[in-house]
Amino acid sequence: MKRLINDPDRIAVEAIEGLVLAFPQFVRKLDDLLSVVRVHAPARGKVAVVTGAWSRHEPLFAGYVGPGMAAANVTGSIFTSPPPGPIFETAKAVNGDAGVLFIYGNSAGDLLNFNLASEMLSEIQIENASIQVTDHVSSAPPNEMMERSGIAGGFFVIRIAGAAAEEGCSLAEVAELAARANAMTRSIGVALISCAIPSLGQPIFQLNSSEIAIGMGIHGEPGEGRSIVMPADQLAAILLERLLLELNIHSGDELGVLVNGQCGLPLCGLLIVSGAVSKMLSHAGIRVVRTYVGNFATSHDTSGCSLSLLKLDSDLKRLVLAPAESPAFVQV
Amino acid sequence: MKRLINDPDRIAVEAIEGLVLAFPQFVRKLDDLLSVVRVHAPARGKVAVVTGAWSRHEPLFAGYVGPGMAAANVTGSIFTSPPPGPIFETAKAVNGDAGVLFIYGNSAGDLLNFNLASEMLSEIQIENASIQVTDHVSSAPPNEMMERSGIAGGFFVIRIAGAAAEEGCSLAEVAELAARANAMTRSIGVALISCAIPSLGQPIFQLNSSEIAIGMGIHGEPGEGRSIVMPADQLAAILLERLLLELNIHSGDELGVLVNGQCGLPLCGLLIVSGAVSKMLSHAGIRVVRTYVGNFATSHDTSGCSLSLLKLDSDLKRLVLAPAESPAFVQV
Repeated sequence: MKRLINDPDRIAVEAIEGLVLAFPQFVRKLDDLLSVVRVHAPARGKVAVVTGAWSRHEPLFAGYVGPGMAAANVTGSIFTSPPPGPIFETAKAVNGDAGVLFIYGNSAGDLLNFNLASEMLSEIQIENASIQVTDHVSSAPPNEMMERSGIAGGFFVIRIAGAAAEEGCSLAEVAELAARANAMTRSIGVALISCAIPSLGQPIFQLNSSEIAIGMGIHGEPGEGRSIVMPADQLAAILLERLLLELNIHSGDELGVLVNGQCGLPLCGLLIVSGAVSKMLSHAGIRVVRTYVGNFATSHDTSGCSLSLLKLDSDLKRLVLAPAESPAFVQV
Repeated sequence: MKRLINDPDRIAVEAIEGLVLAFPQFVRKLDDLLSVVRVHAPARGKVAVVTGAWSRHEPLFAGYVGPGMAAANVTGSIFTSPPPGPIFETAKAVNGDAGVLFIYGNSAGDLLNFNLASEMLSEIQIENASIQVTDHVSSAPPNEMMERSGIAGGFFVIRIAGAAAEEGCSLAEVAELAARANAMTRSIGVALISCAIPSLGQPIFQLNSSEIAIGMGIHGEPGEGRSIVMPADQLAAILLERLLLELNIHSGDELGVLVNGQCGLPLCGLLIVSGAVSKMLSHAGIRVVRTYVGNFATSHDTSGCSLSLLKLDSDLKRLVLAPAESPAFVQV
């Protein structure tokens, strides 16, 4: 396993340092925490969206801190949740007297730590609410929606919440819009080659040369089962059909689309998949309001991708198109 | 070799189709050519910057078409130059009566084809000029500068030329600024794992588990020689030192910095390298005006990265910071 690192135990620390050194126009580090906050704090009276996540999904979430996106992000170590103390300190630092909305993935560790941080905030009279991202359709069946984990669709939830906060919505309004964005977002992934964690030095799961894993999770979960390698158009059809059914999407509906790279796939492959998705949606009379293609939420060095759909109503459409500036996502 | 494709011979075609379908707010396809042009043509009286390149370096160059960037890009097939006919047709289509500046890599095939297209344009009285990107320090010694090839630093040359064209500079001025940007840009790459061309189905060169190739080219050229795997900080120091010497950079100078991923490296690795570069430059009293980190010019699925420096004067500084909108690069 050849890596461009210094020390496997310091990857998260050094990546955050690198991020704030590269993008001082957007972000700075908060004290000695693994927290990234906006260089210009949100205005007083605006809700602060605070995200948190295991590291190694870069640019998710630390790359999405800036105007129209999150106010701050708290990073954990490799594939572990950030602890409650740093979450609390970070939220307190960016609070603009309009409350804090936490957005994080639906994992037991995150839930525990963010709930503790939420209690600590409430104790000092900082109003707060939490949204857990549950976009990953392969992680639990539809009747166990609240058991589902969050993957790349978290980008859309942060996007909507950040834009709503920028508009000056109240905490209750931002929380409702973020919950609506999460309810209207579904994602599914596919892995060609498993990632390998540097400290382990080996792939999390094995796929032979003719196998792919549909339903792969963002932490290397091997998915729903193995399939044979297939042309990009067929694979795109399988992923898309699953999400259209889940979201009950029909002709005339409007969507945001994210074709996300997990890291090891060339952009041309992602563009071929997104092209196939665009054509199928157009053929079905479904309107795509905005498409995003690239490495938005990676899974270390996994070779794979995911497809996320956000079903839009008029509020979500306005917010998804709103301006944003952050290290990993700029929209005019 | 597992790929997300349909047909190895149609990768370039389908990737371009995917690009224009994903980003209709910026680009459209020109007829049945492998050409991408701005959806809103440059205003009359503004120079049209037209780029061209072998495919498989996505997002370079087709992803950099839009306001403040190129007016159009002509793509060749996998690792081959675009032919003169399509270059001519594309340039003619985006000409705004202020002339055309071609920007392309310094390869024999590109030179031949762009020269032919240039002659065809001149025959119909469309003024034009050409700049070849020669940023790759490992491809020839300093006294053979015009033999050097172009790699990721081409991003800076397009950026400067596109911003100058947007400002309304004349063709002579845009060409001079692009030439100056090229003269002030140097890049060097390092490969951890070679790319493999789908139609060949095997890596271009072999590196064992303890080897890296410093000086790797963008088409899989194996570089200046093999080195052992080393910590990111040491590698960053070697790459940076080489470029600082080449550009004769001293304390007080101002730079643009690009840490470019070739595709297969996680963003955290690129951020660790860029963090090391930032710290060394700061320590040496050299000011970084803007840093870019990500997959700007890939080499199929190579696991590796490159470092590019652009030494800034007041013109280049103003232009590098100017707004830009394109599928792969947006700056406010």
